[in-house]
Amino acid sequence: MEKKQDNPPYLAPDSVGLVNTEYFTFAEDEPMPLACGKTLGPITLAYETYGRLNDEKDNAILLLHALSGSAHAAGYHSPEDPYPGWWDAFVGPGKPFDTDKYFIICSNVIGSCVGSTGPASINPQTEAPYALSFPVITIGDMVEAQRHLIDHFGIDKLLAVSGGSMGGMQALDWCIRYPEKVHSSVILAVSHSQSALGIAFNEVARQAIFQDSNWNNGDYYDEQIPDQGLALARMIGHITYLSEEKMCEKFGRRLQNKEMLSYGFDSEFQIESYLHHQGIKFVNRFDANSYLYLTKALDYFDIRMDHGDGYLAAAFENVKSDFLMISFSSDWLYPPTGMRDIVNALRANGKKVGYLDIETDDGHDAFLLPNTTLAGTIENFLRQEHRKLNADK
Amino acid sequence: MEKKQDNPPYLAPDSVGLVNTEYFTFAEDEPMPLACGKTLGPITLAYETYGRLNDEKDNAILLLHALSGSAHAAGYHSPEDPYPGWWDAFVGPGKPFDTDKYFIICSNVIGSCVGSTGPASINPQTEAPYALSFPVITIGDMVEAQRHLIDHFGIDKLLAVSGGSMGGMQALDWCIRYPEKVHSSVILAVSHSQSALGIAFNEVARQAIFQDSNWNNGDYYDEQIPDQGLALARMIGHITYLSEEKMCEKFGRRLQNKEMLSYGFDSEFQIESYLHHQGIKFVNRFDANSYLYLTKALDYFDIRMDHGDGYLAAAFENVKSDFLMISFSSDWLYPPTGMRDIVNALRANGKKVGYLDIETDDGHDAFLLPNTTLAGTIENFLRQEHRKLNADK
Repeated sequence: MEKKQDNPPYLAPDSVGLVNTEYFTFAEDEPMPLACGKTLGPITLAYETYGRLNDEKDNAILLLHALSGSAHAAGYHSPEDPYPGWWDAFVGPGKPFDTDKYFIICSNVIGSCVGSTGPASINPQTEAPYALSFPVITIGDMVEAQRHLIDHFGIDKLLAVSGGSMGGMQALDWCIRYPEKVHSSVILAVSHSQSALGIAFNEVARQAIFQDSNWNNGDYYDEQIPDQGLALARMIGHITYLSEEKMCEKFGRRLQNKEMLSYGFDSEFQIESYLHHQGIKFVNRFDANSYLYLTKALDYFDIRMDHGDGYLAAAFENVKSDFLMISFSSDWLYPPTGMRDIVNALRANGKKVGYLDIETDDGHDAFLLPNTTLAGTIENFLRQEHRKLNADK
Repeated sequence: MEKKQDNPPYLAPDSVGLVNTEYFTFAEDEPMPLACGKTLGPITLAYETYGRLNDEKDNAILLLHALSGSAHAAGYHSPEDPYPGWWDAFVGPGKPFDTDKYFIICSNVIGSCVGSTGPASINPQTEAPYALSFPVITIGDMVEAQRHLIDHFGIDKLLAVSGGSMGGMQALDWCIRYPEKVHSSVILAVSHSQSALGIAFNEVARQAIFQDSNWNNGDYYDEQIPDQGLALARMIGHITYLSEEKMCEKFGRRLQNKEMLSYGFDSEFQIESYLHHQGIKFVNRFDANSYLYLTKALDYFDIRMDHGDGYLAAAFENVKSDFLMISFSSDWLYPPTGMRDIVNALRANGKKVGYLDIETDDGHDAFLLPNTTLAGTIENFLRQEHRKLNADK
C-alpha cells in the first residue's frame, strides 16, 4: 500500500511557512554599556519576523526566548526541517500570536550562540572567539540590545512583549525599563527573582561544565568541545523542567530493556535514557560557554533589587503596561507563589493585571506546550489590548 | 577573660560517651550469594553497639544508616572528636533509643567505605582493591549481611529495626525478608520504591563521578582520587535534602561577600558556597565508587517488584512487625504520599501501624535533626513494643 502523501507541515494553513533568520548589527562605533561596567560592541542580533508591520507600526509583538531558545519561534527553516520554531503552537495565522494581525519579532539574546553575539563569537579586536573574555551579561543587558533592534524597526511602542522562563524575566525588565514602549505584557512561568533553588541547580550545572577537562577554562573552540560537561548540565536542567507527577507518569520505574535488571552502571531505567538523550541532543546545538553566561544572567535576576531598592511593589511603580500573568501549578522551578507575588505587587500599584494559574502536570515545560486554555486566554488578551491601543490614539 | 571550661560533650549524662567501632568477618569459607547472581566473601561489617544486651536477648534494636552514614550512630570516637554519631540526638541514656534499656547495634552497610567490605576493600584473590569488580549490591544484600551479624550476637528476634532514607529501605526489607526476626519497626523518610525523580538525581550524580578523568573507570586507589566528580555528586544530592522553603529561609539570594555582585563565575551567593562546602567536606570521608554502588542500590529498591509480584499489599502479606511510620511534610525526595501508600498497604493486611507526618520545613534531612514530637513518639512506641514483646512470652 502506498503511503499517503500529506502536505508538508510548513504548508499547513496555520503555519507561518518557510522563514529565514535575519541579522542586525549595531554598537559598531560606540560599544553598548553593560550592567557589569564593561562595554560590548559591535553587537549582532539574530532575529526572525512573522506577519507584517502595519503602517501605524502599532501591531508589533516582541517574543522573548528562554535559556536554550533562539530567534526561531515559528515556522520552518527548510522543507526538510522536521521541527518548527520553539513557540510554533502559539504563533501563526489564526493562532494566539496571530500573524494575520500582528507583526511578531523574536531575537536571539546576547550571550547566546544561535546567531547573536556571545562568547563563541569572534572578538574583532583579537580575531579570536571571546570565550571567557566575554563580559558577564544580565537580563537587562539582553533587553538593552533588543531595544536597539526595536528602534531599528522604527517602532515606538510594542503592542506586547511576551515570554516564559528567562523570556518572562526579559518581559518584566522591558516593562520596567521602558514603560513608554510597552503597551501590554504576556508573562509566563517566571518569578520576580531567581530563587536559591534555581541558583543551586544552575551552579551544579556550571560545575559540570567547569569540570570537563575539554572546557579548558573556556578556550576550546579549536579543540574538542566540553560535550560531556554540557550534556550533564543539560541533564540536570531537564530534571527541573518536568514535574514529579509527569516524570512518574512518563517514565516511572520502567526499564529501557524490559527483560531484566542489568546490575551494572549503564542506563537501564527509561528516565536515565531520557536524560542522556536530552543531554546528547543539546551539545549539537548549544555552546557550553553560552550556557555558563546565560545561567549566570538568570541567577542575577532580581527586579526587587535592580529596580525597587529591594521592594517588589516599588519596582513596578512606573510601569504602564497591562499584564496577563500565567503560572503553572506543577512548575517547581518557578512556582505559582512567585507569580502571585508579582500580581499582588502590580495590583498594589493599581495596574491592570489578569492572572491565570493553569492546573497541569507538565511542570515548568508547560509554557512551551499546546494548551487550549492558555491559547484562548492569550488570544483574547491581545485582541483587547490591540483594540485599546487603537482607541487610545 | 578566661574561657569557661565546660565538660566535654561525651561526658554529658545523655551521651553514650566514648565508643569504638568493632569488626565482624564472615563468609570466609563460603561466599554470600547476592541478588545479582554473583557472590561476595569474605565480608567484614564494621559495627558499633551502645547499651547492654540482656540475658533474654530481647532488647536489641538494629539501626540502619542512610547513603553517606556509618556504624557510628552515637557518642564520640575520642575526647577531641567535635561531632558525635549521626543519630546522637536520638540514641543515648534517656533518649528515644534509650541505651539504659535497649541494646543498640548499628553496622556500616556492605558496598560502603566506612569499615565494611566495599569497592575500596582489598579483594583477597587479587590483593588489590575491588574497584569496579565489586559486585552490584541491593538493599536486600545489605540486609542479608546484617542478618549474619545478628546471628553472631545470638539474637533470634530484634525488638526493633529502625532507619530513615536508605536506612528505611533496609528496615522495610528486614520486615519482609525475616518476619520472625523483627518485632517492630520505626521507619522514616522513605518510600516503597525509588521514584523516577530519585533515579534521575542519582544518575546525574553518578555521571558527575564518571566524568571526572581521575575516576579512571574506578581504578584510582593508588592515584589522584576523583574528588571533583564526587564533590559535584554530593552537591547535587544536597539540593534534594533541603526543602525549597528551608533553602529560601537559610540562604535566599544572600551574597557571600555582602558588598556587591562580582559579575564573574566564582561562588557569590551563599547557597553556592554552602553546596561547595558540603561537596569538599564529603570527599575527605567518602569513596567515589561506594557512592556509585550505594546510589545504584537505592535505584533498584522496589519492594513491590522484589517481594509482591508488583503489588505493594502483597509484599506485606507475611510481615509480623508492628510499625511506626514517619514522613516529613517538606521531604520532596521521599514525599509523604509514598509513606501513606505503605501505611495503607500494611493496614490492608491488618497490620498494626502508627503513622506520623511531621509538619516541617527541614525537608528530607529532617529525620536526622532533633525534634521533640519525633523523639516522644519513638520513645512511646518502643516502650509499648518492649512491654508487648515481654507479654507475648
